[in-house]
Amino acid sequence: MTLTSRAFAMSGELRGDRVIVGDPAEASALYNRGYFGVPQPGGGVEMDLLEAVYLVEAERLEVRRDGHRVTSPELFRSAGRAIPSFEIRYLVYRDLRQRGYVVEARGGALDFQVYPRGGAPKKTPSKYWVRALSERAVFDLAELLGRAEEAASVRKTLLLALVDEESDLTYYGVREARPRGHRTIGSPKERAVAHFLGDRAVVIDEAQADALHTAGFFGKMVGRRLQLSLLETAFLLKSGFVEVRNAETDRSIGLSRLIQEAKAIQSDFPLRLRAYEDLTARGVISKTGFKFGSHFRAYEGDPETHHAKYLVHVVPKGHRGAWPEISRAVRLAHGVKKQILFGEVGPSVRYVKLERFRP
Amino acid sequence: MTLTSRAFAMSGELRGDRVIVGDPAEASALYNRGYFGVPQPGGGVEMDLLEAVYLVEAERLEVRRDGHRVTSPELFRSAGRAIPSFEIRYLVYRDLRQRGYVVEARGGALDFQVYPRGGAPKKTPSKYWVRALSERAVFDLAELLGRAEEAASVRKTLLLALVDEESDLTYYGVREARPRGHRTIGSPKERAVAHFLGDRAVVIDEAQADALHTAGFFGKMVGRRLQLSLLETAFLLKSGFVEVRNAETDRSIGLSRLIQEAKAIQSDFPLRLRAYEDLTARGVISKTGFKFGSHFRAYEGDPETHHAKYLVHVVPKGHRGAWPEISRAVRLAHGVKKQILFGEVGPSVRYVKLERFRP
Repeated sequence: MTLTSRAFAMSGELRGDRVIVGDPAEASALYNRGYFGVPQPGGGVEMDLLEAVYLVEAERLEVRRDGHRVTSPELFRSAGRAIPSFEIRYLVYRDLRQRGYVVEARGGALDFQVYPRGGAPKKTPSKYWVRALSERAVFDLAELLGRAEEAASVRKTLLLALVDEESDLTYYGVREARPRGHRTIGSPKERAVAHFLGDRAVVIDEAQADALHTAGFFGKMVGRRLQLSLLETAFLLKSGFVEVRNAETDRSIGLSRLIQEAKAIQSDFPLRLRAYEDLTARGVISKTGFKFGSHFRAYEGDPETHHAKYLVHVVPKGHRGAWPEISRAVRLAHGVKKQILFGEVGPSVRYVKLERFRP
Repeated sequence: MTLTSRAFAMSGELRGDRVIVGDPAEASALYNRGYFGVPQPGGGVEMDLLEAVYLVEAERLEVRRDGHRVTSPELFRSAGRAIPSFEIRYLVYRDLRQRGYVVEARGGALDFQVYPRGGAPKKTPSKYWVRALSERAVFDLAELLGRAEEAASVRKTLLLALVDEESDLTYYGVREARPRGHRTIGSPKERAVAHFLGDRAVVIDEAQADALHTAGFFGKMVGRRLQLSLLETAFLLKSGFVEVRNAETDRSIGLSRLIQEAKAIQSDFPLRLRAYEDLTARGVISKTGFKFGSHFRAYEGDPETHHAKYLVHVVPKGHRGAWPEISRAVRLAHGVKKQILFGEVGPSVRYVKLERFRP
């Protein structure tokens, strides 16, 4: 096998970080069968090192410098020296090429332009923007939102190709999400009294408990009492639906005091509250995502008759996180058939949806 | 319904944080049908407030103080004042009682002793030790290992009942784990050269790559090269199976230098390395758990023919973490049919297994 294919290998000349195939017939074969390289005046093609390493590995190309053959290990090491994160980029390039995609590495900030199967440069628009990332890269939600928006504006699908430490690849599709639900909140006739219990509140009066629960799927009935989460308590207090009292002293508790108490046991409480309010304004009913390790599970309708459609994880604007955590959240959401949204809480709240993608 | 059952309710007297049912016939009915309270000399029973609130809520008991009826809301609020985390403890107590278990709250540090269905105090040994925890409690692995050991020594199952902010319950079974695999590591004839690429290493020589991969399932073949993770590289260097060279300069890299480089991109690298070595010494093959958001996926045999049995998450001795993260890891492991182990890396490495439990 190797002898025969080697005998037919084309020949290229290494010049800096480029490989030039000068023979017009060879160049035309490379470009026409696989769209490798950029055609040059005079009939050759100029390839980058990703392409050259790939073709050498496939034994379709032999590379020479100053009349001497450059071995595959030598070329590989040259590429590593010339190109930042070459190994990461190459693993993704190689995987996409092996799956039969035409891949262009000339996408500016985004690493690759990938054409749909059967498509090609100048014939069809590219379909995917693929960014190769090491699992050790920083998860930057603001950057991701920017890229997703940019990709959507030109009708591309943004994919992230995460390379783990064992060189396994996981692809994620990324797009901005605008969750919508159909909750409308009724107005109970009387303002309920909620007793604050340190990490939750309880409405003890049966009629008030029932009215509040019916008004907008607030809280959870435990026996005849209504248990409210801290978020629900703060939201309902702010909306004027409840007054909150200390369970021991029966003294009234105001909003700023309640938020202060909540912050003491959950430092990101104000962040969660803003996300809760945003989701509520979108008609989405959000409940704790504790069992799923995320901030919220979110419903488009009555939680007792609907399944939660989303899991929502929120971070403050400017947050930079770790990919393994994100990876775990996406995997988990997929396992329970929910969509995972990452929410960026700034002056407004924006959401990005990540899902595993099989190219 | 309420009138009739109220007419038959038994009567108890509130004294401090106890409720005394003095009538011998009523006391005997409470104790014999449900094992509520502690029988007193003279025929009465003395109950704690968990029991009293439960029985009042079920309308089997009416509580009086100084000749006046104590309403259910009043009693509930008294209990909240008298008992730390009453609400959390009560939710778990109530849930277990409603599931038909006999529950004793007198278990010392552990919150409840729970008898097997049909079992009872003085007749059968208790089966479960159940600890009620708020989802906001700290995850303390050392404490958990201690409790699991203690429970196992008297043949009890340790359960944690986590109460989330919406008062939903999740039970976890906890036990110490001792993972074992059947990897034996062969000795390749020659020491391989691994080129260090910053966040991984690569063995470029085909024969060396093949020998190393065969010797103990190390690395991953990509084309004809063998990609080694940083952990594998450090382990193999330490074991004398490879020498490591800088990919650009070809200069030799020693272990302490390699670990220093690895730490710069993964600050917990030494922790991971110790866990990797421990798992390897147990015959377990561990690979990155990146896709699952954990440190390792671990195999009892050849990763190419076996499924990973475990996901392993490691923390340094003394680590105190957050329950929502743990909850997410358990959920995820369950979804992919693997066992999740949490490893405590101290002078030795100890593992605890957590699984969801349906009582």
